[in-house]
Amino acid sequence: MVDNFADRLLAAIRDKGSPVCVGVDPVYERLPDELRGGKDTPAARAEAIREYSRRLLDVIAPIVPAVKPQIAYFEPYREFGLKAYYDVVAHARALGLLVIGDVKRGDIGPTASAYAAAHLGGPDTPDAVTVNGYFGADGLKPFADHAERGKGLFVLVRTSNPSAASVQDFSDGSNTPFYEHMARLVARFGQEDALVGQHGYSAVGAVVGATWPDEARRLREVMPRQIFLVPGYGAQGATAKDCAASFKEDGTGAIVNASRSVIFAYRADQYKGLDWIEAVRRAAVAFAEDIRKAVIP
Amino acid sequence: MVDNFADRLLAAIRDKGSPVCVGVDPVYERLPDELRGGKDTPAARAEAIREYSRRLLDVIAPIVPAVKPQIAYFEPYREFGLKAYYDVVAHARALGLLVIGDVKRGDIGPTASAYAAAHLGGPDTPDAVTVNGYFGADGLKPFADHAERGKGLFVLVRTSNPSAASVQDFSDGSNTPFYEHMARLVARFGQEDALVGQHGYSAVGAVVGATWPDEARRLREVMPRQIFLVPGYGAQGATAKDCAASFKEDGTGAIVNASRSVIFAYRADQYKGLDWIEAVRRAAVAFAEDIRKAVIP
Repeated sequence: MVDNFADRLLAAIRDKGSPVCVGVDPVYERLPDELRGGKDTPAARAEAIREYSRRLLDVIAPIVPAVKPQIAYFEPYREFGLKAYYDVVAHARALGLLVIGDVKRGDIGPTASAYAAAHLGGPDTPDAVTVNGYFGADGLKPFADHAERGKGLFVLVRTSNPSAASVQDFSDGSNTPFYEHMARLVARFGQEDALVGQHGYSAVGAVVGATWPDEARRLREVMPRQIFLVPGYGAQGATAKDCAASFKEDGTGAIVNASRSVIFAYRADQYKGLDWIEAVRRAAVAFAEDIRKAVIP
Repeated sequence: MVDNFADRLLAAIRDKGSPVCVGVDPVYERLPDELRGGKDTPAARAEAIREYSRRLLDVIAPIVPAVKPQIAYFEPYREFGLKAYYDVVAHARALGLLVIGDVKRGDIGPTASAYAAAHLGGPDTPDAVTVNGYFGADGLKPFADHAERGKGLFVLVRTSNPSAASVQDFSDGSNTPFYEHMARLVARFGQEDALVGQHGYSAVGAVVGATWPDEARRLREVMPRQIFLVPGYGAQGATAKDCAASFKEDGTGAIVNASRSVIFAYRADQYKGLDWIEAVRRAAVAFAEDIRKAVIP
């Protein structure tokens, strides 16, 4: 009996009391001073972001149900960076956190199979990954095969960045925008019995940016079985109220991500003078509380 | 004075006499028997695909102007795989080949900057990479910044796989399909002076699958300044004639990629009994000749 990813995520959210996720985006230049310095080599930088990420995870593990390591910040350090990435994934899992690898991979079928094996195969990979759906169903299938065995994926539908609309709002004569077309494809693709858990949610979720609440409300109707991974809170400008548009009335159906506003809290005026660990802890608590109040009935 | 990537690519194609690229997709299970065996660890597999890829490059370097290593086949071996990938990139460059890293990365601006630094920054990265344009201009910009300094990118417009149409053909009331909308965005984005070389082509190119010749002909008009990277020949079913739709009448404007039909030629009946190196060499020559005849006036 496989534990469906959506079920696992819902249970983790219930345990921690708030549907939030912290993005682990370890930008070397923004790390606390004490973790930089010394030699400036790819190996030394990878070690610094690894150490920073581990300490960050230790602080936030009691507060949030899930974390989302962003592999882009590890890749510049090549083999050292990738080793650090998987070490961070393993540490998060050891702390009982659900791990969403933010890798946004996507390719034609055979190549997507290799990506899926790399990022969801084996026992020490993330619980889920983000996937780019530009290739359609045959590019999603290899990831979904892993989702039938307990893993999950979040397909990009509506991203949180400023120029998202220039691509994703492309609309047909009947006013159906492209992102809604993508949403329908994800909804169809994710409705197979083998993917749907006991609470009616699919292990195939969707990325829906918090910065577009009107679009999110519409997408909430189009994708009833999808859990939304919602980026854009905090540094990107969305509020808890904006995020609420991605949830159902019962307070389920989405998980909100914040990265910079939490993990670099020690660089904000609000937390000036605090130890970096304490600043992060307070920012994570405030984030979890803000979202909980806005969405849990 | 920066050497524009499009100019460098055109020169390399002229030197070798055919607009072709070989995809380096080292699937461990399909390697020649002599390169497998021994211990079956991630490190051993990474070493096998590294050795295979290096020998492959040695054989094809005199025949083709460019190669396209597919990072997905390296990622399952984690730090060992990534080290092998960059070793293969360096070896190809040392052989005088242009290297297109097939990474299909794409994300919001700050994250795209990290990806661009990883894959186009520094002296020992590929000459160009493939990029997913789902995020629009602000996700492309960090890659284009490197393209202003001699690197290149190919943005996915129309992919070669069977389910491409289900996403990319989404059309508006006036019969403009989504992929054409994406093509117009790429054309606009790539027309800046700093990106356009002395032959009128931009360092921002496009991926246009050979498996859709009618679409390619239309896209050839929509993107006059883009060099098309054309996958789909051979194993995916497209012929040289299909590929010709991506070229201008003067025989410029595209480069055709073949992967499996060349690099695993020793597994085809046609080349049975030959040493694997010789099978690959003949398949590469036949591929270059087939495309040359179909497109060079």
